[in-house]
Amino acid sequence: MARLVVLYKKPTDAAAFDRYYSEKHIPIAKRIPGLRKFEISKGQVATPAGPSAFHLIATLEFDDMGAMQNAFASPEGQATAADVRNFATGGVEMVMFDTEAA
Amino acid sequence: MARLVVLYKKPTDAAAFDRYYSEKHIPIAKRIPGLRKFEISKGQVATPAGPSAFHLIATLEFDDMGAMQNAFASPEGQATAADVRNFATGGVEMVMFDTEAA
Repeated sequence: MARLVVLYKKPTDAAAFDRYYSEKHIPIAKRIPGLRKFEISKGQVATPAGPSAFHLIATLEFDDMGAMQNAFASPEGQATAADVRNFATGGVEMVMFDTEAA
Repeated sequence: MARLVVLYKKPTDAAAFDRYYSEKHIPIAKRIPGLRKFEISKGQVATPAGPSAFHLIATLEFDDMGAMQNAFASPEGQATAADVRNFATGGVEMVMFDTEAA
């Protein structure tokens, strides 16, 4: 599987972020073609040393890197990417990679 | 599931990192009690804008946050954490969180 991990830093207004994310962004993102799995963090994002800089982490899975590239290039993928600026007031980091069992 | 994502930044010697990681670190980490799934990135870690600062990303899954905390507190978890300094020459970021379907 290929995985996209989206790390949202703490926003200026957490309640507004959460509301927009669940009501607006998730429905948009779920339309991305080829999306096999879509999970979000529940509760606090921690580090071994304590609280993290992140408010929410989303994990999206696709069959492979080609499917992920096609998904990003699609109108639905472009709409999802464009929507991020509407709520990610703390900034966001994204990493994309293929995976294998360790 | 609770998930630990370990993001290794680019090391000073990628070949040495890869050798140590596969030959030494993975066998140590696999002994962590309660570890349900252990995946690593395969090939390059990218961002939507191009190459990322990360060399490798490991994803470890546990039943829940309590199981993850117990795993970290165990001798095997402590040994795994202590081993990271032996190869993570570029630094490392870790995030821990519970997950739910979006």
